[in-house]
Amino acid sequence: MKKVVLLRHGESIWNKENRFTGWTDVDLSAKGVEEATVAGKTLKEHGFVFQKAYTSYLKRAVKTLNGVLDVMDLDWIPVEKSWRLNEKHYGMLQGLNKTETAEKYGEEQVLIWRRSYDIAPAPLASDDPRNPRADLRYNELTDCEIPLTESLKETVERAVPYWEKVIVPSLQQYNQVIVAAHGNSLRGIIKFLKNISDSDIVSLNLPTAIPYVFEFDDNITLVKDYFLGDPEEIKKKMAAVANQGKK
Amino acid sequence: MKKVVLLRHGESIWNKENRFTGWTDVDLSAKGVEEATVAGKTLKEHGFVFQKAYTSYLKRAVKTLNGVLDVMDLDWIPVEKSWRLNEKHYGMLQGLNKTETAEKYGEEQVLIWRRSYDIAPAPLASDDPRNPRADLRYNELTDCEIPLTESLKETVERAVPYWEKVIVPSLQQYNQVIVAAHGNSLRGIIKFLKNISDSDIVSLNLPTAIPYVFEFDDNITLVKDYFLGDPEEIKKKMAAVANQGKK
Repeated sequence: MKKVVLLRHGESIWNKENRFTGWTDVDLSAKGVEEATVAGKTLKEHGFVFQKAYTSYLKRAVKTLNGVLDVMDLDWIPVEKSWRLNEKHYGMLQGLNKTETAEKYGEEQVLIWRRSYDIAPAPLASDDPRNPRADLRYNELTDCEIPLTESLKETVERAVPYWEKVIVPSLQQYNQVIVAAHGNSLRGIIKFLKNISDSDIVSLNLPTAIPYVFEFDDNITLVKDYFLGDPEEIKKKMAAVANQGKK
Repeated sequence: MKKVVLLRHGESIWNKENRFTGWTDVDLSAKGVEEATVAGKTLKEHGFVFQKAYTSYLKRAVKTLNGVLDVMDLDWIPVEKSWRLNEKHYGMLQGLNKTETAEKYGEEQVLIWRRSYDIAPAPLASDDPRNPRADLRYNELTDCEIPLTESLKETVERAVPYWEKVIVPSLQQYNQVIVAAHGNSLRGIIKFLKNISDSDIVSLNLPTAIPYVFEFDDNITLVKDYFLGDPEEIKKKMAAVANQGKK
């Protein structure tokens, strides 16, 4: 039996301020740090002992992972980071407050930008200082790979190959791995694993820092998946994420 | 110009209690966490931008590194961990208070155990729960590699190959790397780099969490080395380490 735990990062400062974050490298809030600790305790109580961890290039995911591993006394395990696990790039919306954007463009347009499968927000200009090309951590990316904006579809298309080519092969060696990432990169992996349609995946609202366990048999066929934690708390968290784009 | 920064971890809870730690996985003290933050600020002020980091399997080193990278906004860089960068294994002394040990065995014996090059403390019994064989993080080690105690010589002999075979080759790809580790594994690397004699290396007392910069030319020949920080503070820290074994 192989187990993969998907974990959305804890609350960031911009989650709290209700701003579009995307590839902006925003820190965890104090609540986010605490959420990571709780996630680590829950995983430890359930007997998890990860042998390998994956995360994005963004500190809210890296630090959620570090917090979880520290609580579990697993600071020492190998951690691999990839831009492919980054949040969806939100283009021109990055930095804008979601409520203000809703007032300006209408709730419907914001919902389209946030939740349609293949429509991307307006792209950054290539000379925008937010262009990932200006950030040395993305030096390794080809011009085709560097996003100036992304639809969920494009996010899925760069996250799923990392699942298939990096994480799945590592399950030959490891029985338990954890992936600490973001709402949309994790949606991509979950869409692939559970064969969820383009229209249904947009309404999957992952709660922050709630461990989502996927169990596989030895052929890496999905056997079952479930959240760890209090069901009422999870429901509340999912509703909170779904309501973020409202006025 | 290539730069490698060697960094001894910040104060741990057992440093504070003056106990022999070795491979015991003791956490940082609050002061140790603060020391990591200061080291990160110093490195940032001096313009360092690391591309790769190395650390041990022990959380006091991993967490010092995480703290440094976070202050430098470098949470995203690749980190490689190895048991070869672990502290010297202190055998039966692990867990004992240094002052009590000095009272019991005499200062001279303690100094021999702490500071002779090739005399190791009494080994753990193989059924001792502290035997690293009982810890799954050391599963990858062969029976020859698993220590029940170590002399400084043995520590050097397993740390230097990591420098030669892993860190040096990575300097082809990276211009700036950081190694966050321990007093004795770093002594090994410094001994090798500066060709320090067996008798002289035992009196090199590295200050905690003070960045020690080594500059190399493109042939990876050492050009110069220096500490970053206030010289008086460094001197004080070195003296504090040297005096730990006294009654």
